[in-house]
This record gives sequence, C-alpha cells and structure tokens, in this order.
Amino acid sequence: MENRIILLPGDGIGKEILEAAVKVLHVVEEKFNHRFVYETHAIGGNAIDRFGVPLTDETVNACKNADAVLLGAVGGPKWDNVPADIRPEKGLLKIRKELGLFANLRPIKAFASLLHASPLKEHIIKDSDILIVRELTSGIYFGKPSERRENGKVVVDTLYYERYEIERIVDKAFQFARMRKKKLTSVDKANVLESSRVWREIVNEKSSLYPDVEVEHLLVDAASMKLITNPSQFDVLVTENMFGDILSDEASVLTGSLGMLPSASIRSDQFGLYEPIHGSAPDIAGKGMANPIGMILSAALMLRFSFAMEEEASAIEAAVNETLSDGYHTADLQIENGTKLSTNEITEVITEKL
Amino acid sequence: MENRIILLPGDGIGKEILEAAVKVLHVVEEKFNHRFVYETHAIGGNAIDRFGVPLTDETVNACKNADAVLLGAVGGPKWDNVPADIRPEKGLLKIRKELGLFANLRPIKAFASLLHASPLKEHIIKDSDILIVRELTSGIYFGKPSERRENGKVVVDTLYYERYEIERIVDKAFQFARMRKKKLTSVDKANVLESSRVWREIVNEKSSLYPDVEVEHLLVDAASMKLITNPSQFDVLVTENMFGDILSDEASVLTGSLGMLPSASIRSDQFGLYEPIHGSAPDIAGKGMANPIGMILSAALMLRFSFAMEEEASAIEAAVNETLSDGYHTADLQIENGTKLSTNEITEVITEKL
Ligand SMILES: CC(C)[C@H](C(=O)O)[C@@H](O)C(=O)O
Ligand SMILES: CC(C)[C@H](C(=O)O)[C@@H](O)C(=O)O
Repeated sequence: MENRIILLPGDGIGKEILEAAVKVLHVVEEKFNHRFVYETHAIGGNAIDRFGVPLTDETVNACKNADAVLLGAVGGPKWDNVPADIRPEKGLLKIRKELGLFANLRPIKAFASLLHASPLKEHIIKDSDILIVRELTSGIYFGKPSERRENGKVVVDTLYYERYEIERIVDKAFQFARMRKKKLTSVDKANVLESSRVWREIVNEKSSLYPDVEVEHLLVDAASMKLITNPSQFDVLVTENMFGDILSDEASVLTGSLGMLPSASIRSDQFGLYEPIHGSAPDIAGKGMANPIGMILSAALMLRFSFAMEEEASAIEAAVNETLSDGYHTADLQIENGTKLSTNEITEVITEKL
Repeated sequence: MENRIILLPGDGIGKEILEAAVKVLHVVEEKFNHRFVYETHAIGGNAIDRFGVPLTDETVNACKNADAVLLGAVGGPKWDNVPADIRPEKGLLKIRKELGLFANLRPIKAFASLLHASPLKEHIIKDSDILIVRELTSGIYFGKPSERRENGKVVVDTLYYERYEIERIVDKAFQFARMRKKKLTSVDKANVLESSRVWREIVNEKSSLYPDVEVEHLLVDAASMKLITNPSQFDVLVTENMFGDILSDEASVLTGSLGMLPSASIRSDQFGLYEPIHGSAPDIAGKGMANPIGMILSAALMLRFSFAMEEEASAIEAAVNETLSDGYHTADLQIENGTKLSTNEITEVITEKL
C-alpha cells in the first residue's frame, strides 16, 4: 500500500524544514518497509508570486486526493502589502476550511533535557503534559459579516458557531481525554459570550457519554493564568478557534522551544494536515540554521493519526528525544555544553538514531 | 474640598478588603489633611439577593454623582444558577458601560521582594514594568446581536467597534506611553479580524501625533507568548476588550501574586472606578485572611488618577513595598522566613508605615 503525501513547503524556512522531515520519512520507509509518494504544491507567499493567490484550486484538489498533507509555514514581510483577502495566511485559513480540518491538536510537553530552556521554573513545568484541542474551521475566524460599515465609522466581526461544529470538536476532545489521563478542561468565556454558554451546555451534555472523563470548565482569562501558574492541572484542554490560537501559543512557552512543537489538524476520517506551530522565520530562511524538529515531529503525528503507524511515530519521537538528550540543538536554543548543529546536521543525527 | 467616594464592596472577600483600603485612606486623610466622604452601595450577588438585579439605578446614579468608585469584587457559586442576564458579573459590565469607563489600566510590575514567588525565572521578570491599557466598554462584550438562532442550531456573538471608540483608547495609551518609557505595543489579530485591521490603521494614524513614542504591532498569539518569554520588551500594551481580558490576567503571573494587583477604569475626565484584578474568592470570605493589597493599591490609583494626589498615592505604594520587603504577607503567598498576617494585621502594618 502506498501513502500519498502532499508537501506544502510554503515560505521562509518552510522548504528547509520540510526537506528535513522528508529525509526522516525516507528512513522510516526503508526501515519499516513502507512506500510514501510525495507531491509538492504551492501555498502562501510563493503561490501569490506565481499565481496571484495564496492557494489555488489545483493545490486544494491535490490535497483532497491525498492521504495527508505536510505543511512548512507561510508568510513573510515580502507580502506585507498585498490586499487583506489574498494575504499568505489566507491560504492557510482556506486550506483548513476546504479540507474540513476542524480539530487542531497541539501536544505541549516539555522535553526532559530542555527544562532549563523554559522561562518558567523547573518545578512548575516538570510534570506538565497537555493536549490542546482547538476548533479550527469556525468561530470568529470565518463568521460573516466581517466588514466595515457606515463609511468606515463602524467595524464588525462575527463569532458564529453551529451546534454540530461545537459537538464534533467536543466529542473529539473527550475521545482524546479517554486515551490519556481522563481529564477534560473546557475553556470559554461563559460569563460574557452567548456562544460560550452554548459551548458549556454542549460539554455538559456530552459528558454523560463519557462518564469516565472528569470535566472542568475554566474561563479563558483564568485559563491563561493557570497555564503558567499550574500547567500540570491540565490534561486535555478544548476550546474554540480564537481562544485556542492564543492559549496554544501561550502554552508553548512551557517547553521553552517554539521550534520543537508539532501540530495536527484532523477531521473525522484518517486524513490530516500536519505543521509545526512556529512561523516562517524569514530572517533566517536559506541559512541552513532552522530548527527542523517541530516539522519532523509533525511528520510523526501524521504517521500516528493518518497512517495508524504508532510504532513508526514513536520511533521518530524517541530519536528526537535522544538527540536532544545528547546535547544536540540548533541555533534557536542556547544550551550550555551543548553541540550546536545546522538543520542538515541535526537531521542526520536524528535519522542515524532511528 | 471634599472628595466623594462610592464604596461597592460586592461579594465574597470584597467587604473585608474594601474596609482595609478605607482604613488606609483614613490615615491619608489625616496625614495629608484631606476629607473623603464615603457612601456604600450594593453590586453583584448581594444586589441580586436584595433587589433582584446585580446593579440598581440607584447605585448607578450614586456613582454618577461621585468623584470616584472603589469596588471590591463580585460573584460566587451562590449565584451560579441565576439567569445569564442578571448574573453578578453583569453588574460589573453594566457599571463600566453606564459610567463610560472605556480605559482599563492594569500596571504589572513584580515587587522586588517577591521575585521568587513568580512561576517565572527571576532573570525573565526582573526588569519588567508593563502598563496594560484595555478597551473596556465595547467589542464583543457589548456587540449586538449576541443570541441563539434557528431553534438553537446557531449561536452568534458580535465584535463591534465604532471608530471613535478605538481612537480614544489608542490616544489614552499613547499619552501614558509618553509619560513612561515611550514605547507602545498594540496587540490585535490583523491577519484574521477586520476590526483588528481598523485598529491597526488607527494606531498608525495616531502615531504621527506622538512622534516621540515608538510603536510596535503584535498579533495576539505572539503577544501571549512574548509576555512570558520576554516581558521586559513591553512598556505600554494597548488592546481591545477581550484580548485585554486574557492578556492582563496572563501578565499577572509575572508578579506571582494576583492578590497584589490593582486596576483603574477611567474615561476622559478625572472620574474613575478602582478595583483589584482578583475575584471575590468566596472560599476564604469572612475568614480574615484575604490579601487586601490589590484593593489598597487600587485606592492609591484612585488618589493618583481621580484626585491628582500623586504624593499620597506614592506614599501608599511605598508603605506597601516596605511591608513586603519586611517579609510580611497574607496566606495567599508562601514566603520562607516571612511573617504571615491576617487581613487586619497587614493593613495595620501598612498604615503604620504611612
Ligand atoms: C497565521 C494565522 C492565521 C494562524 C491562526 O491564527 O490560526 C496561526 O496563528 C496559527 O495558529 O496557525
Ligand atoms: C467578570 C468578568 C466579566 C470580567 C471581564 O471579563 O471583564 C473580569 O474578568 C475582569 O477582567 O474584570
């Protein structure tokens, strides 16, 4: 059986880190006797340069016909002045929506060998292991109207949710909680937003289907505090699109290493899109110094969620952990007595350990 | 001249901490020869119990006829099941709106003697000194419609801003930046929200009026990260209502002591409402162990902003700092070799140092 993977390098360091991930996947293919077929397409700024839009129908269709998508990163100052509706990020928002990827998963866990790299004290982050489940294809990101009115005197954005959109993401989150420590924290702003009150009701309704999972509701302001003061109180955290955007970036500080963090955007079948949570880092693009680990771990999530290759995914994660424990790192981290490597070099170390 | 102050103790520990603040104000009156006149009114849960609503017209009118308002905190589990539109928090939202308090100021600065109490490493927070300026009377908190539709199949909240609402808060923020380190960080989500694009345009337009202030734009997700990884990059941070709610609670972790943090909600004249940023802590209410410092420092902000009594405000702040340096603290903080005091006791220490 072949697995068809679409590669969307995007902009900035996207190309370099995606090449690194593919090298790792090649080793997995050999070692575990799989066959992955790759096809590369444009997204983001480079798509604007070539086609005038950040995402073409051709790319969307290619993704729809594949088993999974690996995405590098989009955007950069080069496209700062393109009109709002064709900015590079719109390509990202559109591909998520077109592919129906409603659940964004961000596992946040400090690497044991990198505890000292976090701005937080070690005893605070030591035992934290959080899975953030963010709703990704609705909410204020996609609600209409989003417009200026009365000659620009007024501006409006709309936070819009359909019940089924909340139900399916909450279900997903409960299912993940069940496979983990069986605790679900639902984050909303129910003391202000009607959409949050519906959200909270749905979580409470659904909880009767998952009696083995403990449910906690937190207001988003309290959650933003507790993620830092007491991260180990969280297991699975589920929230709507915008709150998820803010809280998941915030939670990344627990690891002290944005460059290391993967994400999976999935739906009800096996299909998924996988990307690191960091951006395109145009300032270091092309210099061979980017940290490929967030991308490599995203490829591992692809193996786990889209291809049901748990053993292979774990093998990659173990190789990354070993590499870090041995003191190898890229330039984004300052590590005393560590060995600073280029993108290619660290990728080689990881593949050797596989 | 008399200064007329409305006291709104609210619920939970509100009463205890407000009494503490009034004791401190009495000493200020004597020492600096002022006359403050107090009048107490209901808000929040206790107003629901007595009048069926969390805020009566009588309270609103009393506030409108006063020079400033001191508020303790509202809410508690006792009112968890009252209908959404008369919950205790609605009293808070309504009083802000009725009084036109569009600018919420939250100064965030770690106390030198409490650096070890923060979950963040000392070198990270050491030099941080941030003033968060949050828009408080518009945005998704007040936008209509906010409702369920189609038999509950759909739910909608509306993020609504009028241009003048953005202009006046941005102006305020520039003015504060001018009095401080002359750096303004404006936080938005301009890659997604139309309201954020208008926000950003207005900040850029206004910046020509304040050429001495350096302006930086940050996306809210990046800001939520940088507040933790590099807090000292901030001077004044200005943002819309909901982002401000999340980021200001998050930023409070820098100080390691939510109970210490004051806030001021002001408008274009001298009038203002002052409250600690913590909640009503119903679990410890009535036990005499609440930390009154957030409330006492809120009273200091009242002296500074509403009564132009800078010397008096600084005297209170100095007394609080000295008290903390001497190792005195309430039960919310764990301090090695410190002296744990009750609400009354620590208030007494502070008044003695005044
Ligand atoms: C680039 C931007 C539109 C995007 C988002 O807000 O979803 C990014 O921040 C992310 O989290 O993937
Ligand atoms: C109680 C709540 C409505 C309020 C808000 O969200 O504004 C509170 O969190 C605050 O920040 O003062």
